[in-house]
Amino acid sequence: MPQGEMRKPLLGGAAEPDVPACDLKSPAVGILGTGDFSRSLAHRLLACGLRVIVGSRSPDRNADRFPAGVEVSTQRDAAAQAHVLFVALFPDHYSSLAALKGELAGKVLVDVSNGTTLNRSRPSNAEELAALFPESSVVKGFNVLSAWALLNGPRDGSRQVLICSDDFQAKNRVALLARSMGFVPVDMGCLSSARDIENAPLYLFPSWGSPFLCAVCLFFSFYIYNFFRGVLLPYVIKGHNVFYKLPVEMVNETLPLVSLVMLALVYLPGLLAAGLQLLRGTKYQTFPMWLDRWLCMRKQLGLLSFFCAAMHALYSLCLPMRSSARYKLLNAAFKQVKLGQESSWMEQDVWRMELYLSFGIVALGVLSLLAVTSLPSVGNSLNWREFSFVQSGLGYAALSISTLHTLTFGWNRAFDPGQYEFYLPPTFVLAVLLPCIVLLGRLALALPCLSLRLARIRRGWETRLHQVHFRLPDEDMSTV
Amino acid sequence: MPQGEMRKPLLGGAAEPDVPACDLKSPAVGILGTGDFSRSLAHRLLACGLRVIVGSRSPDRNADRFPAGVEVSTQRDAAAQAHVLFVALFPDHYSSLAALKGELAGKVLVDVSNGTTLNRSRPSNAEELAALFPESSVVKGFNVLSAWALLNGPRDGSRQVLICSDDFQAKNRVALLARSMGFVPVDMGCLSSARDIENAPLYLFPSWGSPFLCAVCLFFSFYIYNFFRGVLLPYVIKGHNVFYKLPVEMVNETLPLVSLVMLALVYLPGLLAAGLQLLRGTKYQTFPMWLDRWLCMRKQLGLLSFFCAAMHALYSLCLPMRSSARYKLLNAAFKQVKLGQESSWMEQDVWRMELYLSFGIVALGVLSLLAVTSLPSVGNSLNWREFSFVQSGLGYAALSISTLHTLTFGWNRAFDPGQYEFYLPPTFVLAVLLPCIVLLGRLALALPCLSLRLARIRRGWETRLHQVHFRLPDEDMSTV
Amino acid sequence: MPQGEMRKPLLGGAAEPDVPACDLKSPAVGILGTGDFSRSLAHRLLACGLRVIVGSRSPDRNADRFPAGVEVSTQRDAAAQAHVLFVALFPDHYSSLAALKGELAGKVLVDVSNGTTLNRSRPSNAEELAALFPESSVVKGFNVLSAWALLNGPRDGSRQVLICSDDFQAKNRVALLARSMGFVPVDMGCLSSARDIENAPLYLFPSWGSPFLCAVCLFFSFYIYNFFRGVLLPYVIKGHNVFYKLPVEMVNETLPLVSLVMLALVYLPGLLAAGLQLLRGTKYQTFPMWLDRWLCMRKQLGLLSFFCAAMHALYSLCLPMRSSARYKLLNAAFKQVKLGQESSWMEQDVWRMELYLSFGIVALGVLSLLAVTSLPSVGNSLNWREFSFVQSGLGYAALSISTLHTLTFGWNRAFDPGQYEFYLPPTFVLAVLLPCIVLLGRLALALPCLSLRLARIRRGWETRLHQVHFRLPDEDMSTV
Repeated sequence: MPQGEMRKPLLGGAAEPDVPACDLKSPAVGILGTGDFSRSLAHRLLACGLRVIVGSRSPDRNADRFPAGVEVSTQRDAAAQAHVLFVALFPDHYSSLAALKGELAGKVLVDVSNGTTLNRSRPSNAEELAALFPESSVVKGFNVLSAWALLNGPRDGSRQVLICSDDFQAKNRVALLARSMGFVPVDMGCLSSARDIENAPLYLFPSWGSPFLCAVCLFFSFYIYNFFRGVLLPYVIKGHNVFYKLPVEMVNETLPLVSLVMLALVYLPGLLAAGLQLLRGTKYQTFPMWLDRWLCMRKQLGLLSFFCAAMHALYSLCLPMRSSARYKLLNAAFKQVKLGQESSWMEQDVWRMELYLSFGIVALGVLSLLAVTSLPSVGNSLNWREFSFVQSGLGYAALSISTLHTLTFGWNRAFDPGQYEFYLPPTFVLAVLLPCIVLLGRLALALPCLSLRLARIRRGWETRLHQVHFRLPDEDMSTV
Repeated sequence: MPQGEMRKPLLGGAAEPDVPACDLKSPAVGILGTGDFSRSLAHRLLACGLRVIVGSRSPDRNADRFPAGVEVSTQRDAAAQAHVLFVALFPDHYSSLAALKGELAGKVLVDVSNGTTLNRSRPSNAEELAALFPESSVVKGFNVLSAWALLNGPRDGSRQVLICSDDFQAKNRVALLARSMGFVPVDMGCLSSARDIENAPLYLFPSWGSPFLCAVCLFFSFYIYNFFRGVLLPYVIKGHNVFYKLPVEMVNETLPLVSLVMLALVYLPGLLAAGLQLLRGTKYQTFPMWLDRWLCMRKQLGLLSFFCAAMHALYSLCLPMRSSARYKLLNAAFKQVKLGQESSWMEQDVWRMELYLSFGIVALGVLSLLAVTSLPSVGNSLNWREFSFVQSGLGYAALSISTLHTLTFGWNRAFDPGQYEFYLPPTFVLAVLLPCIVLLGRLALALPCLSLRLARIRRGWETRLHQVHFRLPDEDMSTV
Repeated sequence: MPQGEMRKPLLGGAAEPDVPACDLKSPAVGILGTGDFSRSLAHRLLACGLRVIVGSRSPDRNADRFPAGVEVSTQRDAAAQAHVLFVALFPDHYSSLAALKGELAGKVLVDVSNGTTLNRSRPSNAEELAALFPESSVVKGFNVLSAWALLNGPRDGSRQVLICSDDFQAKNRVALLARSMGFVPVDMGCLSSARDIENAPLYLFPSWGSPFLCAVCLFFSFYIYNFFRGVLLPYVIKGHNVFYKLPVEMVNETLPLVSLVMLALVYLPGLLAAGLQLLRGTKYQTFPMWLDRWLCMRKQLGLLSFFCAAMHALYSLCLPMRSSARYKLLNAAFKQVKLGQESSWMEQDVWRMELYLSFGIVALGVLSLLAVTSLPSVGNSLNWREFSFVQSGLGYAALSISTLHTLTFGWNRAFDPGQYEFYLPPTFVLAVLLPCIVLLGRLALALPCLSLRLARIRRGWETRLHQVHFRLPDEDMSTV
């Protein structure tokens, strides 16, 4: 049965030739070190019905710190008995294991250590461990788990355990172990990616920082401007007390502006990149750092823009609910009766409102489609043709419609001097500028002269290499 | 070409040495049994262009029950010809195959059986099959598919086929087969997880049961209380007929209370757990069963709370649409005119409403962020630091804001004797108690004395082991 | 160290016996061809710190077209040095490599070509390449990437690289390479699925075409009908100018009808399928093509129906915000005062509205649950029992409730002759027919006589095989 013979070395490793590859029950799992990680891990492994040997420098002293059923022995003994060993020491103390080199040869060492600070240049702890024990197969993993998840098994939140190693079988073995502990192993490839795995737990929404900051700044600048123009000045100058507008109306005037500007900021970098490629006449030069970073932020900018738009919708829908709206209506009715005017219908005002609303609703609908497609599981089910159709096609549609929404809101008020008392333009005038620029830029790129040239450039054509390129058509191909 | 030699046994198995590993067209796939599963499977395999041999105890009688192209032969013949065999018999009849032990040696047997009742203790059918045929490689799989998906190929719904085996290559082979049938094989590790796979199709939202029940009970108790207090008693005692409030207003008064209490129930168990750890002075003792189960329910409780909150928003937004609101407004206008009062503006009422609304909107916004992060694909893209930030940071923010929402709704009415006619307190007074307790508890844990101690405990420190622990700093490490 | 010896051939391949399997830095990666794809790929590989050799038919002429660090050499030289070679030629020029057969033997050839048109029958380019070089291991992959993603590394959008091959190790090697380039390799099994991979980038929402078309047609036919009946005729005949209704009110009257009909279309094919099975007395006959396609569209139909329902909700919630609503209210107040009527309360109208609203809200709530479960990541976490519970149980609930929503909206107006001026029935009368038919059909299937028979059929029972079937109970089993 050659297959059977094949199998053992494949997963079982050389250490226990007679143990079926996958039976994780019988072979002991070793842990070197008796710190908290070691103890949580021991609890967990025991709970999964595995045999656990903890290697300690002072077994007798530490035995009572581990649950019954865990064998606490010397490090040498643990190294000798177990085939897979978790190294639960501070990286600085890895060297203290040097004496065990012999016992650890051919064994699988799992490096569970975490960096305390982001490591961009130094070699990873796992790579240093591998350098110390060239005879052993080092696997990086289990560091992304919270102590809680480790002790009590995976709860909600990510069940993923990132694993990497240069030894295919060792990785496989640890992956099976992780699975049998209830986690989802994720193969991150070679040990060279250990550094990323060690950095992983240190990040806190790295890609969201600047987009979020940008949104917050936009919000407050617009809000304060609106406050001055719409609440403070009228109070100071005319003595109108409309401070009740602060919590709802002012916020609801500010959110759409933030949303619109953010949406424009999603599509601006793409235009700049295209312009740069047109200028340079090639796509093979990398973009300046700031543009590159900006391009990577588009998804986050877009989602924040959608969030603001959704909140704006929610606020607007709440407007008629407010007592203030109710009182105003009652007083208006009173006035109308007093004036004895049969009807207060104003056709133009009605039309403005209907158009303004319908643009807003449609824009929100399109934006929500964009938001859904940026869910990981949905985005992954799209091929790049579908993805670019949604992101650029639908995206520009959303931008145009929400610009129309703002314009119909403004209607002719932008030219009404009454809006400029205090000599401050209304905010929607300020907010609509950037989107208009972006839309015009996009139209410019749609001009045949530019679009054709850009298409050629993106197909790989270059100004200075024109001839060379077309003398070798037989070797030319492109995925676009 | 050593690589080439390597390859064959790797996937091809010993049976067909000259067939390239992966070519699933030529080698026959066998099915033992002629029941419905066997026939659906045969249809499907045939549709995928595979050669199918059905092994029957009475081939002649069953031949006509299978589509043309399927070879119906004796079990012995099928066992001899095919390398992968689906065992489509009742587990009770596995023993009837004992005679084929020889032919089945070295073959891959796929156990497709399903339990009819949850199996918590007994060995799985697959493990029993493996015990009967130690020479063969048993793979568990294909049982999670509906007969419909099996016959017609995967439609919408889960395309996943959970697979497990102790034989790495056999598993690989069956995984490839599943893939070529259009399913997504999911490696569940060793045959020891076969029981979970057999139980999988029997569950119906196991983790949602008690949270859902809890929500329903809360809803009805609050609804009935509101009905008595707000509709029945006024009718009986004063003859006010406000039964029209039942479908919308009463539901809309009840939903936010349910949502608020559920949200508090999400964070209460965490506090209890922390308290328990403080009392015990260690984190290495497991929690009582009920607390453990409660901790596992938090996600579901939170999502139900969000659902109620969203429905509450929807109901509230519909209020101004109703004819009843319209009529009340018209009558109010009439009254105002009759009384000849210029303005009915009440500053305090206006402020209450504006604050109340804005708290509600913000709370819903935060809750929706929480809901999005609990989507599997989003949650998996978070590391545990991000996850805990969202779940505990944003979560407590949402709880505080929605408590404020309820308090501003209550405003001074809680102290208005008019609210206590019939001697029944308004529901928002009842509902706001638990959240306040939770928030106070959280604040208490934020006190340095407690928080530091708790942090130490969670870092692995224990009361009784204090000294021992710090005599071995070099072996201490933690991932937190 | 047998394990170590094992490892090399497993991933390292025969070419570089002394290089550790996974160290992708040292071994050169080759690219045959100097077109755009070749250059983008070279940029990317270089950026990942890999050694790149480009094989060109005229190295000297092409050297300057590649970034410094990329070795541009003869094809023969590249083939000799590299172990993994990307074939970046037009498929028509594959034969031009025939001379290199010797050098390419035992090497891994990656076919990155894309079809320009959907290929349903022809063998895939990758299979043709494999036929040309039987000694080499051909892997299909990297064709689904946009040139942008290839040049600049994966950005947002799908990071997946679909890979397939008949050589397990070659596939593994290319998967590791893809991972180290920052992509997510997805194993698509055997080279036989290369055609699907080549077709993948050509699709643009293939499954959404007809459902979307269906929705659009329904929308416009209903909208135009409403326009005639509600706007044009009143204007022409009575001179009522209500054109302001076009942007919001008319759309809001049309959307729910579309949504309702689409939802009915989700459940109709299931009924037809059941009926067909009852007529035929078996489930083993395939359905007619149109029905089969329809059954595959249900998910898309349902999601579009949900989208229309959500937009309808948004439109309806905006109604009270409009100036038109405001003016109407003011005028009504004026009228009421003039008429001096104390109260305009109409109990029946109030009740109609309350019921109508609450049905709508609940229906939307249920539909949104359905929508959430059709997210890939959520759907995959359901077993088929849960899935069918949600899709058929909740689905029919949603259908019934939204039918009630429409009926309460109609109330007694369906029998009010006033609705039939111009002899055109109101649209809700037309739209409610199909859902009623579907619901009645479902009820019919719930009759014991039919449901039992259907259940038997779906368990595999067949009219003509009744006896045979039950003489072999021991071999009968089913997953349902």
